[in-house]
Amino acid sequence: MNFRIDALQYADWSEKIFCQLREGKLDGVHVTITYHENFRETVLVMEKWNRWFERFPNLIFQGFDASDLEQAQLSGRTAIFFGSQNPSCMEDDIGLVEILHRLGLRFMQLSYNNQSLLATGCYEEEDPGLTRMGREVIKEMNRVGLVIDMSHSAERSTLEAIELSSRPIAITHANPSLWHPALRNKSNQVLRTLGESGGILGFSLYPHHLKEGTNCTRRSFCEMVAQTAELVGVTQIGMGSDLCQDQPDEIVEWMRNGRWTKSMDYGEGSAKVPGFPPMPDWYPDNRAFGSLADSLREVGFAEKEVAGILGNNWARFFAESFSARVEDIK
Amino acid sequence: MNFRIDALQYADWSEKIFCQLREGKLDGVHVTITYHENFRETVLVMEKWNRWFERFPNLIFQGFDASDLEQAQLSGRTAIFFGSQNPSCMEDDIGLVEILHRLGLRFMQLSYNNQSLLATGCYEEEDPGLTRMGREVIKEMNRVGLVIDMSHSAERSTLEAIELSSRPIAITHANPSLWHPALRNKSNQVLRTLGESGGILGFSLYPHHLKEGTNCTRRSFCEMVAQTAELVGVTQIGMGSDLCQDQPDEIVEWMRNGRWTKSMDYGEGSAKVPGFPPMPDWYPDNRAFGSLADSLREVGFAEKEVAGILGNNWARFFAESFSARVEDIK
Repeated sequence: MNFRIDALQYADWSEKIFCQLREGKLDGVHVTITYHENFRETVLVMEKWNRWFERFPNLIFQGFDASDLEQAQLSGRTAIFFGSQNPSCMEDDIGLVEILHRLGLRFMQLSYNNQSLLATGCYEEEDPGLTRMGREVIKEMNRVGLVIDMSHSAERSTLEAIELSSRPIAITHANPSLWHPALRNKSNQVLRTLGESGGILGFSLYPHHLKEGTNCTRRSFCEMVAQTAELVGVTQIGMGSDLCQDQPDEIVEWMRNGRWTKSMDYGEGSAKVPGFPPMPDWYPDNRAFGSLADSLREVGFAEKEVAGILGNNWARFFAESFSARVEDIK
Repeated sequence: MNFRIDALQYADWSEKIFCQLREGKLDGVHVTITYHENFRETVLVMEKWNRWFERFPNLIFQGFDASDLEQAQLSGRTAIFFGSQNPSCMEDDIGLVEILHRLGLRFMQLSYNNQSLLATGCYEEEDPGLTRMGREVIKEMNRVGLVIDMSHSAERSTLEAIELSSRPIAITHANPSLWHPALRNKSNQVLRTLGESGGILGFSLYPHHLKEGTNCTRRSFCEMVAQTAELVGVTQIGMGSDLCQDQPDEIVEWMRNGRWTKSMDYGEGSAKVPGFPPMPDWYPDNRAFGSLADSLREVGFAEKEVAGILGNNWARFFAESFSARVEDIK
């Protein structure tokens, strides 16, 4: 069975977008449900998703295990896997790791741009590496099967997380900084270490992560994928589009500023370009997902590699990552 | 397979008591995890239980489905099923019903002695019946498979809940008021209606619910069980001991007073007897569970009926009650 998986989206969800997921034949999507929200606020977002699962049972359902991908394909629906871009949802309470996992959280970033209780974000000037709590939380995430995501974390923290984690980690949505030197993109050292440790990278289509931004061509993007495959390994890459479809600009403000500043932080944008940048015209929404296949073939990927990049690599990673480890089950 | 199930306990849990559960060969116990705690506070108690599950994996594990009873017996452990004695844990948010069920809550009382947002408690002077929110929450509990427990609710509210609920309800811990006229015990009308609707009653061993309290004899208790079986139906009864082993008296104060009063409410006790009453000497702890079998035989129950009362009736009820209904699964 070949799967189509997008390992990060944060759309302003609606029936329209759920239908587009089906048109794009996505079997699984990792959706961001929370940034700076505390635990109770995160649960409120889960409640919102529960209402969507109730209203649109023929389009979507909540994914908990890799087996839900098969279930999704067989029933013509999309399995929705929850993730958090920041550890705010677990507050200062390591016991919430297991609770959030029980509620279906499958990815959690250790930091989002800034320093967190666990690790340093990619926009801090100094990166002292993992905190004391960060080291404890990594062990707990490993135990229950909550994937460590370092997409928005800083270099040293990321390398330390890869080393300390006893299970492979993910960078769900980023590109190589060699191709496009955004602070959010990743160094060759991070990418190589990630791949060697069994970790996985999701390629981002968010314009601020793309060479030439909105004007980046599909060809250029796919050539970058081919170059990165050399570095990370062709079985250790997939898609993580970072599609923020239909979101109003207030949302990118919330993502960047949360409740941590009273002045305006523009993140990857600027005062001139404060809002969401327009997506490249060849990737307006989920219906374009399949169109990546041809371009990947054109840059030289074999059929099996294309299938891996479009979903099978993530499917394998989900299967290895979402459950308590056998050695931890008494 | 014959199961041993106790459908309500609120002990001050410890390794000692978990070992006693095993000595008593209990396959499943419904434990109260929360009274007046709000959602976040309830989750903290769940976190505490998660630590116990981690520390004592050879004695206990969390039960989610009736199939966990079989798992418990096969592995020589006790499955712990969570319940709440009050709807405080769901606050004013119907979306928390599904969240709490996902976290393993399997029983929720609609009220505890006082008026709640959902229904009236057994110590209120007036019982106006189910509230508007109560009616909505019953539908949602029915949908997800969270059992309605009316142990501490008032008469009219209880009868209305039985009628409105599309699934059988439980009174997990109470006795007939005809035998012992405590406000917490139940009228013949409630008991008959409960049984006719497929509901189930757990017999309480809490001294305030017993004729002659601490001095109640096992024979008297079992005769009461036999009389009640005539009323409710021999397949609709089980045990709900209300064992509060090792709890300090501050806990019964919390149960009775929560945060709703500044003066002291003694509940079933009095200023003279403010604390936990001593258990009857024939039921000090879980090791005595099996000893009920002989006394039940003595008052005339057949072997199969004894097995039903000691657990098989609850096992059937668990199997019918803990999952989303087939007609609700799209």
